[in-house]
Amino acid sequence: MDEELISSLAVKTDSKLVLLVIDGVGGLEVDGMTELEAAHTPNLDELARKSICGVTDPVSSGITPGSGPAHLALFGYDPLKYTIGRGVLEALGVGIELGPRDLCCRGNFATVDPSGVVVDRRAGRLPTEKNAELCRLLQSQVGSIEGVEIGFTSGKEHRLVVVFRGGDLSDKVSDTDPQKVGERPRPASPLAPEAEPTSRLVNSVVELASQVLSRQSPANALLLRGFSKCPDFPSMRELFRLSPAAIATYPMYRGLAKLVGMEVLDAGDSTEEEFATLKGNFYKYDFFYIHIKKPDRYGEDGDFNGKVMSIEEVDEWIPSVLELRPDVLVVTGDHSTPSLLKSHSWHPNPFMLYSLHCRSDGVARFTERECRKGGLGRFPAVEVLPLMLANGLKLKKYGA
Amino acid sequence: MDEELISSLAVKTDSKLVLLVIDGVGGLEVDGMTELEAAHTPNLDELARKSICGVTDPVSSGITPGSGPAHLALFGYDPLKYTIGRGVLEALGVGIELGPRDLCCRGNFATVDPSGVVVDRRAGRLPTEKNAELCRLLQSQVGSIEGVEIGFTSGKEHRLVVVFRGGDLSDKVSDTDPQKVGERPRPASPLAPEAEPTSRLVNSVVELASQVLSRQSPANALLLRGFSKCPDFPSMRELFRLSPAAIATYPMYRGLAKLVGMEVLDAGDSTEEEFATLKGNFYKYDFFYIHIKKPDRYGEDGDFNGKVMSIEEVDEWIPSVLELRPDVLVVTGDHSTPSLLKSHSWHPNPFMLYSLHCRSDGVARFTERECRKGGLGRFPAVEVLPLMLANGLKLKKYGA
Repeated sequence: MDEELISSLAVKTDSKLVLLVIDGVGGLEVDGMTELEAAHTPNLDELARKSICGVTDPVSSGITPGSGPAHLALFGYDPLKYTIGRGVLEALGVGIELGPRDLCCRGNFATVDPSGVVVDRRAGRLPTEKNAELCRLLQSQVGSIEGVEIGFTSGKEHRLVVVFRGGDLSDKVSDTDPQKVGERPRPASPLAPEAEPTSRLVNSVVELASQVLSRQSPANALLLRGFSKCPDFPSMRELFRLSPAAIATYPMYRGLAKLVGMEVLDAGDSTEEEFATLKGNFYKYDFFYIHIKKPDRYGEDGDFNGKVMSIEEVDEWIPSVLELRPDVLVVTGDHSTPSLLKSHSWHPNPFMLYSLHCRSDGVARFTERECRKGGLGRFPAVEVLPLMLANGLKLKKYGA
Repeated sequence: MDEELISSLAVKTDSKLVLLVIDGVGGLEVDGMTELEAAHTPNLDELARKSICGVTDPVSSGITPGSGPAHLALFGYDPLKYTIGRGVLEALGVGIELGPRDLCCRGNFATVDPSGVVVDRRAGRLPTEKNAELCRLLQSQVGSIEGVEIGFTSGKEHRLVVVFRGGDLSDKVSDTDPQKVGERPRPASPLAPEAEPTSRLVNSVVELASQVLSRQSPANALLLRGFSKCPDFPSMRELFRLSPAAIATYPMYRGLAKLVGMEVLDAGDSTEEEFATLKGNFYKYDFFYIHIKKPDRYGEDGDFNGKVMSIEEVDEWIPSVLELRPDVLVVTGDHSTPSLLKSHSWHPNPFMLYSLHCRSDGVARFTERECRKGGLGRFPAVEVLPLMLANGLKLKKYGA
């Protein structure tokens, strides 16, 4: 897929496109059936009968994607060309708003022995509440160095995000996390000449934090990795002439949507509120990304039945989307999360696209194996957005 | 497929992958059925029902591959990026062990008239025994020039391989074979400045050989072409973190496996011995390539029934492979060899991959047309290895 080609053909029209992403919806068989096959989904199945179906590879054969690349592909961005640093993704995940000059990284609270050697990279996976308390402590003691503001935001268990704000900061800085026990934390070092001041700053922060944490147990050290800055992606407005809006309850997906220039709507924290947000804002935008998190969470937990039920819950909302009469409605996953594997996987995503000119293909159920027989076959997820634009009559002819 | 991406995600695990290559297995219909469709293959068919199936293009649509590119693709090497010189392939085919500095080329015994003009490029396709006798004669008379050892190895009929060993040799040397009758053999000439000494050496060899052969009839001249050296490919160990072993009875396939760093096992010279070798070495490696030659040979001979029987023979060995409990088992061809065409062809290869998390697709028979309906659809053969790694849980997640 060549986004410059798509960009050169995209035109602004009134048609409205809806991309419904059911996170991790694809699965694997348990007792002969996948989660989708086991679910009772009359509305999704009826939509499949009117749609063109297929399965998508988020990146390529055999590649298991993280949420970042999987979503970028669905938004029309080549996930091998457009990459997002680990620190930035972690920051998006905890809901931090990053400016273009901010530097951020992932952090672990860890345990070092009296000689300074790491003995536990996760400080016994300390309680999240203790993590929050330590972040507040660090914030009060190490909130600013040499005119640079330092922000400590707690994540779950031992995880935190550190943001450096102010001045001319570089992300070409090596990790301080040795990634294994039995070694000392490494000093940050510059990976390019211009990163010299930043790496000195990082080392000062780590040293001060060590002093602050020295009386704590077991979290008496801070390990940093994945220094990165917000990528400067062209927006979906620039690339595809869309006015896009995002409806998602989790910070990670709201952050990803913002990276490609979507307007992030206030979507509450339930599926019901998400679909109400779609309805209430339908007149305002021409592209809607709605993200449903639950099936992925149940998949990660290995909870087959929970995933089945969460899929059935989504199914009940399909009529309310169709009532809005979108010109194009896509239902798919970002990646598969089989409860059998308890993790993201490489398996292609079931996909269906409904529009008045989709050339429906007789697929009778929205499942992995039925969609595979559909008119689109197996194809790269980065082609989803061009297909949506085309079905919304938003792409001019190529050549004469 | 981006092998750098795969390489960056590959991890070492204990899972065991088996790639069973049935050479030339794909075919074309005679009386409505292909060789696979005509064959009785209960074991392959039962495996297909538990597998994910598809068909692979070795290179791209319509391209008929030689054994070299077809195998490189299956080993995870882009066959358009990784190329092997004709001389080297010929040398591998007759079982010559090439060092990194050795130069080799293909040769023909030919007939020239008294004025030196080529009248038969193949010397009447002289008997293979005569060829061997002439090679021994040349070896005794032209075994060494200017400190460089010259090795003459006979092939079938008029074909031979010449190896130059010692000193700083270049492969940037033009053919001496004019490729048509009615012309004189051409002097080798340098295709780059550094090849000047090598091309002089080659011309000395040709001249000496002509003197030696001048009293022979009809093979009174030597034509050389395809000067090449062993390519320096990254190994499968480096690229994919595998400990790979090859089980093949023919020198060509053993040589190809060696080029990508496989350990070539002593596999005897029968299918039975090959599968015994797999069993005996199964604990030692984590990737096994097994090559079955017969179906290709029958295909090349246009022997439909012979090919059917050779496929049925392979089928009988499938249970013995499954008894070893490989984590991933792939059965496919390198290229098609329809007996109708008596040659390699461009038709995609039937493919199936069995693992505990393959997402089986209901394909009921291992045939070209049934596999085409499978969950993987039609895809490039170079994606086979990433899929095997993924199914063996040997690939980390891409991005977060």
